[in-house]
Amino acid sequence: MKLIIDAMGGDHAPVEIIKGAVQVLNSEPKLELIFTGPEEVLKNELLKYTYDIERVEIVDATEVITMDEHPVAAIKHKRNSSMVVGLELLKSKRGDAFITAGSTGATLAGALLRVGRIKGIQRPGLAPILPNKNKGVVLIDCGANMDCKPVNLAQFAIMGSIYAEHILDVTAPRVGLASVGTEDEKGNELSKASFQLIKEQNAVNFVGNIEGRDIFDKVDVVVADGFSGNLILKSVEGMGGYIFDSLKKALTSSLLTKLGALLMKSALYKMKKTLDYTTYGGAPLLGIDGIIIKAHGSTKAKALEYTIAQAMRMVDADIVNVIRSNITAEETTD
Amino acid sequence: MKLIIDAMGGDHAPVEIIKGAVQVLNSEPKLELIFTGPEEVLKNELLKYTYDIERVEIVDATEVITMDEHPVAAIKHKRNSSMVVGLELLKSKRGDAFITAGSTGATLAGALLRVGRIKGIQRPGLAPILPNKNKGVVLIDCGANMDCKPVNLAQFAIMGSIYAEHILDVTAPRVGLASVGTEDEKGNELSKASFQLIKEQNAVNFVGNIEGRDIFDKVDVVVADGFSGNLILKSVEGMGGYIFDSLKKALTSSLLTKLGALLMKSALYKMKKTLDYTTYGGAPLLGIDGIIIKAHGSTKAKALEYTIAQAMRMVDADIVNVIRSNITAEETTD
Repeated sequence: MKLIIDAMGGDHAPVEIIKGAVQVLNSEPKLELIFTGPEEVLKNELLKYTYDIERVEIVDATEVITMDEHPVAAIKHKRNSSMVVGLELLKSKRGDAFITAGSTGATLAGALLRVGRIKGIQRPGLAPILPNKNKGVVLIDCGANMDCKPVNLAQFAIMGSIYAEHILDVTAPRVGLASVGTEDEKGNELSKASFQLIKEQNAVNFVGNIEGRDIFDKVDVVVADGFSGNLILKSVEGMGGYIFDSLKKALTSSLLTKLGALLMKSALYKMKKTLDYTTYGGAPLLGIDGIIIKAHGSTKAKALEYTIAQAMRMVDADIVNVIRSNITAEETTD
Repeated sequence: MKLIIDAMGGDHAPVEIIKGAVQVLNSEPKLELIFTGPEEVLKNELLKYTYDIERVEIVDATEVITMDEHPVAAIKHKRNSSMVVGLELLKSKRGDAFITAGSTGATLAGALLRVGRIKGIQRPGLAPILPNKNKGVVLIDCGANMDCKPVNLAQFAIMGSIYAEHILDVTAPRVGLASVGTEDEKGNELSKASFQLIKEQNAVNFVGNIEGRDIFDKVDVVVADGFSGNLILKSVEGMGGYIFDSLKKALTSSLLTKLGALLMKSALYKMKKTLDYTTYGGAPLLGIDGIIIKAHGSTKAKALEYTIAQAMRMVDADIVNVIRSNITAEETTD
C-alpha cells in the first residue's frame, strides 16, 4: 500500500508531518510513502530519522498553497505545489490515498478539479468522525457544500453509511438527518425534501430526523448540509474546549482540588482521550474518485499517525469502489 | 409588576411551577402573579404554601395544550387552555409578561395569533442565552423560523443586541453571524445576503462572521436562522451532557478517583453551576408585542425562579418598546 502525503500542508509542516509519517512507516512493513514538497527541505528533514529508505519516495514540489489563498486560483496556478502534485499522483494511481493538512478550500477545489467525482455522485461530502457514546459518529457534510439540494443529502447518507460500516466497524449504521425535532415533519424546506429521498434508499438504515443532542448517542451517521454540519462540528468543538478550560480552572483552584486532581490524573487523562476527536484521524472527502483525507490544520505527528491509520483502513476497505457500486445500485433501483 | 404564568405548562406542572413562583413572590414584594389553569387544581396546590394572597390571582382555564398537539390547531381550538388564556391576558395588558413551559410550537403560534408582532418586525426570534467565557451569549433564532430571509436575520441582530445590552448588561454587545469561517465572503446564500444587511445597521456592533467555536468567547450575540440556531443549541447541550457523563464515569471509576472527587466537590459544583444554562432563565420570543418567555419543558421550581427573575428584568428594561423604537429608527434611517 502506498500513501501520498502533502509534506508541506498544515501549521506544523514539514517537521511534524514527516515525524508522524516515519513513525507509522517503521511499524507498518507493508506501507510505502510518497512525500510531496521541496526535495531539499524534505531530504534534510528525513535525515533526522532511521527508516527503510526503499519505502520512501520524495516527489519534488517547489510551491506551497497557503491558508489565505483563493482555493480555485491556487489550484489552477500553483501547479507545482505540494498539494497539486500530490493530487496528480493520486489521479494517475501512483498511490492509493492522499493526505493533506493544508487549506480545506484548496483540498476541495483540487479534489474536484484534479481528481474528479465518482460517476453519479453530484457533490462530495466532508465527513469527519466525532466521539460519542458508541464507536463515534460520522458527520457528513461538514463544509464542502454550503447550499445543498436534497439529492446531495441523500448521497451523503449512502456514503456516510458505507464509511461508518467499514471504518467504525458498525453493522447497518443508524443514519439520522440533522433537524430541529425527531418528528418526520420537522425541519426546513431542504431537510424535509431530503427526508423523503433518504427514506427511499434501500442501502441506508435511516432512523429519521434527529436533534443536535442525539448525535452523541442515537446514531452512527449524521447527514447535514455543509453549512449546518460545519456549525454543529465547530460548536461542539468549542463547547468541548470551553468545558475543559472550566474544568482545568476548577481542578487548579485550590491546594485541595490540586490534590484531588492528582488522585484522578489517569482517569481524567483516559476520559480526555476518549473525547479526543484527533484519534479518528482527519475528514475524508467522500464521493471523490480517490481516497483524499483532509487532516486538521493543527495536525502534529500523533494526529498524523491516526490519519495514516485511517487512510490504510480506507484503502483496505476499497471505500471508493464500494461507494461506486452502491451509487450505481441505487440508480438502477430507481 | 404583574406576571402571568401558565401553571399547567411543562413536564412538572403545576407542582414545580407553583412552587418556584411562590418562592419568588415571597422574596419580591413588588411582584404580583396571575396563574392560568384549572382553578380547583391550582387552589389546592397553593394551599401548600404561605404567601401574600393579595398578590396572587388565579384565572380559570380548564384545558391544557399537550406537547404532541398540532400547535396552530391547539391554539385555535383550545380557547380555554392555560396557554391561550394567559396569552389573552397579556394581549389585554392585564399583566406585564407571560411565562410558559408548555409546547414551543404552541407558544410560538399563540404568540403570533393572539398577541401579534411589533410593527415592522417580520418574524419574531427565539433567543435563549448560553453560558460562555463572558456574561453569556444570546443565540437568536433558535427554532422559531426554519427558512429565513436576510431581513429576518438583520432584525434578529437588532433584537438580540438590545436584549444582550439590557439583560446581560453588556455595552455595545458584539454581534456575530453564524457561519463557516470568519472571512466576510464565507457562508451560504442566506448568510452572505444577511451579512450585508446586518452590516448596514447602525444600531448593531457587528463583528462579522463567526464559526461555531467562537460562540464561547468572541461574541455576546449570535445571529442564525432558526434551523441552524436550533442545531447549534441542541448540539452544544448534547456535548455538555456527554462530557459530564464521561466526567462522572471518570470520577467514580475507582476508590482513588472517588476520594479525589470528594476533595474537589465544591469546585466541581461551582464549575457545573457556571455552565448551567437554566440560570439564565428561558428563551424570550423577541419581536412579539409583549414579553413572552418560553421556559424549558423540563423546568422545575429553581429554573422557574430564574425565568421569573429574567421576566422582571425584561419588564424593567421595557424591552418591547426599546425594540419598537429601534426598528422604527432603522426604518427611518433607510
